[in-house]
Amino acid sequence: MKERKILLEHGSGGRLSHELIQEIFLPLLRNEYLEKLEDGAVFTGGGGRYCFTTDSFVVSPVFFPGGDIGSLAVHGTVNDLAVMGARPLYLSAGFILEEGFPFDALTTIVCSMADAASRAGVTVVAGDTKVVPRGAADGIFITTSGIGVIEYRRNLSAGSVRPGDAVIVNGTMGDHGAAILVVREGLRAAALVSDSAPLNELVACILAASPNVHCMRDITRGGLTGILKEIALSARMDMMIEEAVIPVAPEVRGVCEMLGLDVLTIANEGKLAVFCAMEDAAQVLTAIKDHPLGRNATMIGRVEAKGTGRVILKTHFGGLREVDLPSGELVPRIC
Amino acid sequence: MKERKILLEHGSGGRLSHELIQEIFLPLLRNEYLEKLEDGAVFTGGGGRYCFTTDSFVVSPVFFPGGDIGSLAVHGTVNDLAVMGARPLYLSAGFILEEGFPFDALTTIVCSMADAASRAGVTVVAGDTKVVPRGAADGIFITTSGIGVIEYRRNLSAGSVRPGDAVIVNGTMGDHGAAILVVREGLRAAALVSDSAPLNELVACILAASPNVHCMRDITRGGLTGILKEIALSARMDMMIEEAVIPVAPEVRGVCEMLGLDVLTIANEGKLAVFCAMEDAAQVLTAIKDHPLGRNATMIGRVEAKGTGRVILKTHFGGLREVDLPSGELVPRIC
Repeated sequence: MKERKILLEHGSGGRLSHELIQEIFLPLLRNEYLEKLEDGAVFTGGGGRYCFTTDSFVVSPVFFPGGDIGSLAVHGTVNDLAVMGARPLYLSAGFILEEGFPFDALTTIVCSMADAASRAGVTVVAGDTKVVPRGAADGIFITTSGIGVIEYRRNLSAGSVRPGDAVIVNGTMGDHGAAILVVREGLRAAALVSDSAPLNELVACILAASPNVHCMRDITRGGLTGILKEIALSARMDMMIEEAVIPVAPEVRGVCEMLGLDVLTIANEGKLAVFCAMEDAAQVLTAIKDHPLGRNATMIGRVEAKGTGRVILKTHFGGLREVDLPSGELVPRIC
Repeated sequence: MKERKILLEHGSGGRLSHELIQEIFLPLLRNEYLEKLEDGAVFTGGGGRYCFTTDSFVVSPVFFPGGDIGSLAVHGTVNDLAVMGARPLYLSAGFILEEGFPFDALTTIVCSMADAASRAGVTVVAGDTKVVPRGAADGIFITTSGIGVIEYRRNLSAGSVRPGDAVIVNGTMGDHGAAILVVREGLRAAALVSDSAPLNELVACILAASPNVHCMRDITRGGLTGILKEIALSARMDMMIEEAVIPVAPEVRGVCEMLGLDVLTIANEGKLAVFCAMEDAAQVLTAIKDHPLGRNATMIGRVEAKGTGRVILKTHFGGLREVDLPSGELVPRIC
């Protein structure tokens, strides 16, 4: 029997990532926190509710239009906390450096982390640095973990999604992934810029606008399709999404078409999906649009009914297409 | 001017690690938590005190006598929490995998993490997996972060160390590093086994034995010399250590001599140094010796007086030798 090996797709946020979690991590480490398959674990302490989350960052190239691995590592963890309804408080950062990595680049990256942390109102309180010999890593990898305090009274989770819920996104899809690809492939495309940004302030506005927000998720690896399908599966809800209203910048669409990629499976780093009660959708949408990170916010669809977790896309041409967890076409090292 | 680059020694836990922190991380990310230069950050929430810590693991080989990168990653973070006086509660784990890494090896490693976590009484509540292309990483890297609750009333920190304090270690030095080196160099040495172990239960016994424990540190990268010098510098205390009484297994001494390494700069993964009031030294030592992980515990010296942070070693031959942060002779990827 052929030995099974880890494939790039196991880190894609799509189907094989899902399988890896279901086959190895969940059964071996099984506990009530991991089983929820959320962006962070919620625990109680001293009467308060806290969220704890982690993400490793291996983006290539390390510097890209709109950010670098340092700001990305801060935003990624801040956003994971934010969508769990947690106000981010503390971050840790573990650095794995390749021998020979330039001091100047490291300095720029740590400056960028400091700026991003300051903007998001979090403090990097703990860290660690390892160095591996030349060839044993590619430049720099950063793992950030974060702790936040949850002040929203309602439990935000896929399990809280209800039939009739509105599905809202805060802006255009695919900007981060397209910006990385343009640099990596040396394309002469229009100046694309990553959307990497801290979403905690926007989330605070959303939660202040409605007591009936049910679930939020930042739309990173796997793209919009990936996270909608994940939530649909977790919630056992079927949903209908209007493809024509999903905001996509023309240049991003162009790059994806040129490279044969589905823009709805491409990572963002400053975008989220919000599931809220339909009667509050207008006020949530207004709150998002009032924030600089939400000007292009749109309601893109609704949760139809309890089901098996089907995500149906009403296409530009009026047809219906069921989407699955992304697989195959891969964009490795996007975050 | 020649561009400065990261050297292996920047990850050694010795002099250059210290410089990297002082030159880049501390000035750029400066805050009250990082400034303490402890193994973890202490924060308050809901009336309780908590500790938050992180460590990246890049050990090579991944499997070694006495453990693997999975158990090591759990023990390392559990121990960082424990020596801060925190009862470990929750861990997160970020995996960076190289394309082609065997499924079986990953399964073994995650099993090993699960066992180690269960033994230490902690729960792995959050995780992330990234995959990088072949050649962009060496097999598997794991970054664990941890949260623990502090129940000891006294503030454990280098700053709490006092003149006259006893310095106690819980056993033989260098076992982990020597075990790794024997495998890596293909030496035909006696069967050396890593001391990798969770120290939280032992620490609970220590803290129950005395209300006058001032500081603890697990003796990892940089070895005994490294952590004593770090504490001496942080505390601005001079200390005197009796080399002859420092426990070292004969086989470990042999391997280090064969490779020209100073056993006191070699990493351990189940050893700690305790600084406590001299009048409580006997009861602390008894408590340690009563625990399976402390049978070879010894008082190895004492804090002499306020000073500049000198660590003086009284040698086997009765001479005095001042030790500094380790530099030069390097053992990369030991943890």
